[in-house]
Amino acid sequence: MNVLVQYILGCHGALRTARPTLSLSIASAILLLLLARSQVYGQSSVEQWGMLEIILKGPTNGNPFVDTRLSATFCWDQADSAAVEAEGFYDGDGNYRVRFMPPQKGKWRYFTSSNRRELDSKKGEFEVSKASAANHGPVHVTNTFHFSYADGKPFKQLGTTCYVWNHQGDVLEEQTIKTLASSPFNKIRFCVFPKRYNWNSNEPPLYPFEGTPPNTWDKARFNPAFFRHLEKRVAALRDLGIEADIILFHPYDEGHWGFDRMTAAEDDRYLKYVVSRLAAFRNVWWSLANEYDFMKEKREADWERFGQIVSTNDPYHHLLSIHNGQRLFNHTRAWITHASIQNGSAVEDAGRAVLYRDVYRKPIVFDEVKYEGDIPKRWGNLSAEELVFRFWEGTIAGTYVGHGETYLHPSDVLWWSKGGVLRGQSPARLAFLRQVLEDSPVEGIEPIDKWQNPEYGGQPGKYYLIYFGKAQPKEWAVKLPKPPQGTGIVIEDGMQFRAEVLDTWNMTTTSIPQIFALKKKTDYFYGDKDDRRIALPGRPYMAVRLKRSVDTLRR
Amino acid sequence: MNVLVQYILGCHGALRTARPTLSLSIASAILLLLLARSQVYGQSSVEQWGMLEIILKGPTNGNPFVDTRLSATFCWDQADSAAVEAEGFYDGDGNYRVRFMPPQKGKWRYFTSSNRRELDSKKGEFEVSKASAANHGPVHVTNTFHFSYADGKPFKQLGTTCYVWNHQGDVLEEQTIKTLASSPFNKIRFCVFPKRYNWNSNEPPLYPFEGTPPNTWDKARFNPAFFRHLEKRVAALRDLGIEADIILFHPYDEGHWGFDRMTAAEDDRYLKYVVSRLAAFRNVWWSLANEYDFMKEKREADWERFGQIVSTNDPYHHLLSIHNGQRLFNHTRAWITHASIQNGSAVEDAGRAVLYRDVYRKPIVFDEVKYEGDIPKRWGNLSAEELVFRFWEGTIAGTYVGHGETYLHPSDVLWWSKGGVLRGQSPARLAFLRQVLEDSPVEGIEPIDKWQNPEYGGQPGKYYLIYFGKAQPKEWAVKLPKPPQGTGIVIEDGMQFRAEVLDTWNMTTTSIPQIFALKKKTDYFYGDKDDRRIALPGRPYMAVRLKRSVDTLRR
Repeated sequence: MNVLVQYILGCHGALRTARPTLSLSIASAILLLLLARSQVYGQSSVEQWGMLEIILKGPTNGNPFVDTRLSATFCWDQADSAAVEAEGFYDGDGNYRVRFMPPQKGKWRYFTSSNRRELDSKKGEFEVSKASAANHGPVHVTNTFHFSYADGKPFKQLGTTCYVWNHQGDVLEEQTIKTLASSPFNKIRFCVFPKRYNWNSNEPPLYPFEGTPPNTWDKARFNPAFFRHLEKRVAALRDLGIEADIILFHPYDEGHWGFDRMTAAEDDRYLKYVVSRLAAFRNVWWSLANEYDFMKEKREADWERFGQIVSTNDPYHHLLSIHNGQRLFNHTRAWITHASIQNGSAVEDAGRAVLYRDVYRKPIVFDEVKYEGDIPKRWGNLSAEELVFRFWEGTIAGTYVGHGETYLHPSDVLWWSKGGVLRGQSPARLAFLRQVLEDSPVEGIEPIDKWQNPEYGGQPGKYYLIYFGKAQPKEWAVKLPKPPQGTGIVIEDGMQFRAEVLDTWNMTTTSIPQIFALKKKTDYFYGDKDDRRIALPGRPYMAVRLKRSVDTLRR
Repeated sequence: MNVLVQYILGCHGALRTARPTLSLSIASAILLLLLARSQVYGQSSVEQWGMLEIILKGPTNGNPFVDTRLSATFCWDQADSAAVEAEGFYDGDGNYRVRFMPPQKGKWRYFTSSNRRELDSKKGEFEVSKASAANHGPVHVTNTFHFSYADGKPFKQLGTTCYVWNHQGDVLEEQTIKTLASSPFNKIRFCVFPKRYNWNSNEPPLYPFEGTPPNTWDKARFNPAFFRHLEKRVAALRDLGIEADIILFHPYDEGHWGFDRMTAAEDDRYLKYVVSRLAAFRNVWWSLANEYDFMKEKREADWERFGQIVSTNDPYHHLLSIHNGQRLFNHTRAWITHASIQNGSAVEDAGRAVLYRDVYRKPIVFDEVKYEGDIPKRWGNLSAEELVFRFWEGTIAGTYVGHGETYLHPSDVLWWSKGGVLRGQSPARLAFLRQVLEDSPVEGIEPIDKWQNPEYGGQPGKYYLIYFGKAQPKEWAVKLPKPPQGTGIVIEDGMQFRAEVLDTWNMTTTSIPQIFALKKKTDYFYGDKDDRRIALPGRPYMAVRLKRSVDTLRR
């Protein structure tokens, strides 16, 4: 009976496959008949990219986390191909849930499948309305090297890291949320598991498994309260418009709790459980690991398997990455959506950063470039100037950079790990950079002449950002590289540009009154026809922004 | 009959597969019996990694290049698994050849297979003797990032490029060989096909196909004289100890001869023919292309297919690469043995060069970093100082670099394309670098602290090369980074080192009389216990070389 109902209720595509001779109209009639008996197990409406939850009561005997299988198929009225199959999960106390993030507006129907009668063949329907103003959907890759929300709005990544801010108790966690709300950051990296490391000796309030700390766990039984808390924090970030880059494994346990050295079966079950709970949050990104190569109990084949599991189990294909210590993962693997890289040296120089674009042909996110702070570790005592400089070098190279802060604190509340408040000088400058990014072309900032003049970013012929870094020029002669052959883009004599001088440290933007008109100077460069120069203050961290003058824009 | 003979004659491994129930001793007896009738079709002896040639007379009717299939299986007396199957080729005038480069000493036997009776089931045996002193075998990858000959001798790549030196007629070609003989270069890149480009308007003396220049070719009929000439040049290089990095396709034809836009069937046949003729030369490397991405008629899938063809058809798995214009190929592909990269900017800074090692985990050869010269192209007017500087930056990053020279010449004889004589200032300095390389650890020069202190190359605890590039320090305080965790290598207080100052431009080596003893200074560095410094002349292009003092070496 279950199988029959599924065939009949199944989205049309599934139906056609299963019963090629059954006419569609008969099937639809039966389907409508059956749906007439539908009962509501969740909301009757939800907004696009919101979260619908099917809530069911089911068995509590045995081990429901392992013994009970539950999933639901969601069918969109308007296209069979839009069907989504989502795994459900056990949430304790006899409660089972299946979560769904509708990718399209309109009418949706669902039916459940389970190995337990109480959970099987439950049906329902609901209406998906237009997303509310602040909801742009999940972030995906666009233009090879960049990101945008599902509704097309560009997402210019400006991330931070607080590895275990979500394990610090409500007071500190809510302070972190408050800090984030007024910060420039639109993404935060953090771990599911708690962390043991310098400045991190506190036990967390909750653990992911049933059992007794530090390390007597029943890893076949999850702790729903732990995950509900995690979800509450992901939801809070979502409501602030901040992407949650969720780190699924990390090495800073070293056997204390043992979450870094579970068996393959435990790892895989854990991944599936996390994905079934969290994939329907639109602001989720998956990071398989922080410093995967420092987890000495795992082989590369494990990470490959984890990548396949997450990629296969996440019906929405949220962004998925893996972050390195010293050994880069092979980011050309198809399941990796973008390269999440730890390497501070790569953003000391746009000419370095740009190299990763060439080899991976994916967005490059430098998620760890060392931190602003004063700890006695060379990865944690950059000046604010140096960190902001690295963001700018990465930006003009057409890549994205992440922030972190490690100032010593009497109670060991370092932003990098626990959150709290920001005390550094970089966030204000990164807010200035965020403004620059939001004002930049929707297609993204691209290197203009990648192996010759890495100080130029932008979109050839339209927009240029020239960053002088630590140099302190007194002037800049207007000079634009000829766009690469084969791109189809040309610049030519007479094109006009308006210019601004940006002081990236002092956060000022100064418009230059003149309009500059191009004239070819060499085989490789155009300059201003009157050889005019732009005066600069002779300080470091200056940039010039050129925008094609609208008056002269053709098309 | 043919099939039976093959089964019986086949190397034991093949026999076992084919006739699992036939006892080995009976098979051996039959094999010996059959071999007793063997007749000699080639040399009766050859040295290891030399070239044995089976020469057969066969049909001349039809199109022997297409109609006739010929191969030979070579069996080593001492291990079935060492069997080699080599494709033969038609060499015109009824002559068919199968070439073999024996990878092991001892007795070898062969039998041929062909679709033509005259060529089929020919058998022979020969003795492979110890390689002569100058023959170290083919070059392969070792220690992930480096090269060695088959006999274990390290190969420290120091390449040059003369794209079509082999298409210039005997006078100039022999001059090039003479120049190479006294040059520091141990590898040269050049093309099978002729080239049309600036400073390259001369037609070549020979063409690869039958037909009439410029472009009336029968691409199903090769011109054996063309290939014999190519082989003569490859052999001359071999005899000088120079590796021949043979470029199979290139874009600088643009339809003049049409070799850049053959059909897939023509491309594939051409590749197989070249491989069947050249694979038995021990000094062959394959480069699928110069600037593959500039060949607009080809897709990436074509290059993938070419890579598979060469890799599959070359029984010796010579080094195989593909060189880019602006778009890097995915060098993580399994058939690619090393990354052959065009990117001058990457070797302006060891901190850039090193990034490619991380992503490809293969040897990195910067085969094009711009050239010493004076042509009005920005890729061809580096100063000698700049080119030598780039070699050094690449070297300390644990990568390899290639030379080229583009000085204008009244008859358009630019080394980069046609060979001739070297007129630049860099080769003498590269000879000095070659000495440094030959003296460096057999394991190769590795980055010592890849993302923090890219100016250090060497082998931690044993050998350090610290290059100051364009900086002009007056002294250097002895300072060695702690080896990375996880490598198992430690340095410790009391270790003693001898130091030399290298002037890489003026080609001098100055020994420092003192012996330096280490003392831990910070979490990241060791220095000299007495904080001694090494005096430097305040000029650019200086390096310091430190070697562990033999007196204090343990083990």
